Amino acid sequence: MNVVNIKPRLLLGPGPSPVPHRVRRAMAEPVIGHMDPQFFEIVDDVQSMLRTVFGTQNRLTLPVSGTGSAGMETAIINFVEPGDTIIVVVAGIFGHRMVEAVKKAGGHAVVMEIPWGQAASLEHLKQTLQEHPQTRMVAVVMAETSTGVCQPLEGWAQAVHQRGALLLVDVVTALGGMPVDVDRKDFDVVFSGTQKCLSAPPGLSPFTASENALERLDNRTTPVASWYLDINAFRQYWGQNRVYHHTAPISMIYGLHEALSLTLEEGLEKRYDRHRQVAASLWAGLEAMGFELLVAPSVRLVSVTTVRIPPSVDDVRLRHDLLHRDGIEIAGGLGSLSGKIWRIGVMGHGARLSNMIELLVALRRRLAEQGRDVPSGVEAAETAYRANNR
Amino acid sequence: MNVVNIKPRLLLGPGPSPVPHRVRRAMAEPVIGHMDPQFFEIVDDVQSMLRTVFGTQNRLTLPVSGTGSAGMETAIINFVEPGDTIIVVVAGIFGHRMVEAVKKAGGHAVVMEIPWGQAASLEHLKQTLQEHPQTRMVAVVMAETSTGVCQPLEGWAQAVHQRGALLLVDVVTALGGMPVDVDRKDFDVVFSGTQKCLSAPPGLSPFTASENALERLDNRTTPVASWYLDINAFRQYWGQNRVYHHTAPISMIYGLHEALSLTLEEGLEKRYDRHRQVAASLWAGLEAMGFELLVAPSVRLVSVTTVRIPPSVDDVRLRHDLLHRDGIEIAGGLGSLSGKIWRIGVMGHGARLSNMIELLVALRRRLAEQGRDVPSGVEAAETAYRANNR
Repeated sequence: MNVVNIKPRLLLGPGPSPVPHRVRRAMAEPVIGHMDPQFFEIVDDVQSMLRTVFGTQNRLTLPVSGTGSAGMETAIINFVEPGDTIIVVVAGIFGHRMVEAVKKAGGHAVVMEIPWGQAASLEHLKQTLQEHPQTRMVAVVMAETSTGVCQPLEGWAQAVHQRGALLLVDVVTALGGMPVDVDRKDFDVVFSGTQKCLSAPPGLSPFTASENALERLDNRTTPVASWYLDINAFRQYWGQNRVYHHTAPISMIYGLHEALSLTLEEGLEKRYDRHRQVAASLWAGLEAMGFELLVAPSVRLVSVTTVRIPPSVDDVRLRHDLLHRDGIEIAGGLGSLSGKIWRIGVMGHGARLSNMIELLVALRRRLAEQGRDVPSGVEAAETAYRANNR
Repeated sequence: MNVVNIKPRLLLGPGPSPVPHRVRRAMAEPVIGHMDPQFFEIVDDVQSMLRTVFGTQNRLTLPVSGTGSAGMETAIINFVEPGDTIIVVVAGIFGHRMVEAVKKAGGHAVVMEIPWGQAASLEHLKQTLQEHPQTRMVAVVMAETSTGVCQPLEGWAQAVHQRGALLLVDVVTALGGMPVDVDRKDFDVVFSGTQKCLSAPPGLSPFTASENALERLDNRTTPVASWYLDINAFRQYWGQNRVYHHTAPISMIYGLHEALSLTLEEGLEKRYDRHRQVAASLWAGLEAMGFELLVAPSVRLVSVTTVRIPPSVDDVRLRHDLLHRDGIEIAGGLGSLSGKIWRIGVMGHGARLSNMIELLVALRRRLAEQGRDVPSGVEAAETAYRANNR
């Protein structure tokens, strides 16, 4: 297939989200050199805008040259030394990945297992820390893309820091769609992705680390087992010195620059409100149609909604029809939730009432084709949208 | 600085090279999902075109989701186990990096040191292999971007395989600009970059590995110390199964697709001839102007020309003027060649006689401003261009 013949899709899965025209246009701008002073101005802007979106003043704030998973690896391979005890909260696929990455880094992973669809409590964390007093770091996912749970993290940093440990937070599906507040919540190591609530193409991982974390890095007794993702090797390119480490992915940085500009032009609070409002309308619409949402409202994630697939509905056929006949992408479940849920993204440029209504209408039509008549969710969605207007 | 206000440059450094309009337009196409059947068609095409350009039938042929350095790391972290003896040919910066990466992977690096600006001999390799009979792999750079040397590799695979070792070859600055011939030369592990002779933006690393290499991977006794770059974890996405590992960098793959299409539309032989012809014209022009080239003609790299900076010329000022007043980027030397040479790229879309003439004219003007009058190189360049027409 030729690239220019691609049929556009309405991307309402858990990422990538729809990339706006201005971002795609930026991707097409002339490539210049990675040591060109013009490019350093763009890099400066990107780092400064990332600090704003992360809610941090951390010096070390930059986009890692890989997808969100590269950010995860960077977080773990730099801050875990062989033999370190790391508590990993596993409440879905993306927590599980961190366990694997910790093991690969030679760490001893203590798994804090949470039933999928639920959040971990601060009490549970404190108890686990007490049982493992040697803990060097706690790793947790703020927005679990595989379950649609938003993990509350108030008080976590305090509990972790009291033990002399670091707090690593995966904010891949949060950044740009809800407050992340790195400094206020005192997170130490934080990574994200570009293709979720920032609505840039996938390929970069926004990353930030506190001075506390950098001190840990300085005191390592073993070398970081990666050349490409060694923070001490690449940080000089992103610092004052601009020392060449690897060729920055120029066009991706252009795209991220434009996506961050759009985010800040809209205003963070307004953008978060929009996500909340559109998610509320989606939830109301789905419930009016008789669907059951997987996650309790108190810990329900704004950016990914997980909905139980009604019995006797053919999951694969329905998603196939939505994609190929309606041009709408949503996703199925992962792991133990495969075949049991759909995952619907309310992310960045895609978080619009009109998109939710398009989905609800198409979903109803495709369910009817499978012999399952459900009420319309449109009016409920519109009503909830108005009710949640701030 | 706003991205859309970037002043385009004529990129005649050692990468990134000029990215043609069709590639940049492809980067701006609508982003679709990484599990969308449309995207898998594009992925299939990319893998098939990469096989053609690499000159291989290797099943495992794919773009690693990072820059060329990520490809280097993938090559080393998967095929080096702790304690393995690895011979690394070091004839410039990029050989030196592989030594560092081998050490980080826990390998024992035997450095085969070659004076910068020269190539290693097959005899030297054989002798080193004899001295280190436990060698598990030999790592070598085919096109050393820091020196402008093209390392001849005829007979290397045979010598390496006789000892039961693998041959790893860095073809970052070769792929798309000269024959790489992976299968004919029997290379085992090969990585490249997109921003050199393929003229796509930086951000992906074309990668291929032989069945021989994959067997080594299957027989590892220790886990690969990376999650993101673990071939066994991500290869299923690029194989028949299409299992999700990490979100592919969609827009980058579009760009690579278009760059490979352009490469094959031109025809590989014609493209290699064009690179040779334009490089010959550059060399003739520079020599007519009185410059001395660093590398002997027999091992001179077509894609990067290294030229000695004449005494009393202010390197930094000259490159600054070229960039800011003429809009032309060339590069200085790295490491021990810093301040001693310029590096001029003859790569991909940039390999045109007109670009070389633009550079030669600008260079002469800027040298005159520094009080150094040199003859014109234009006629010599044009003559050599015609003489090298096939």
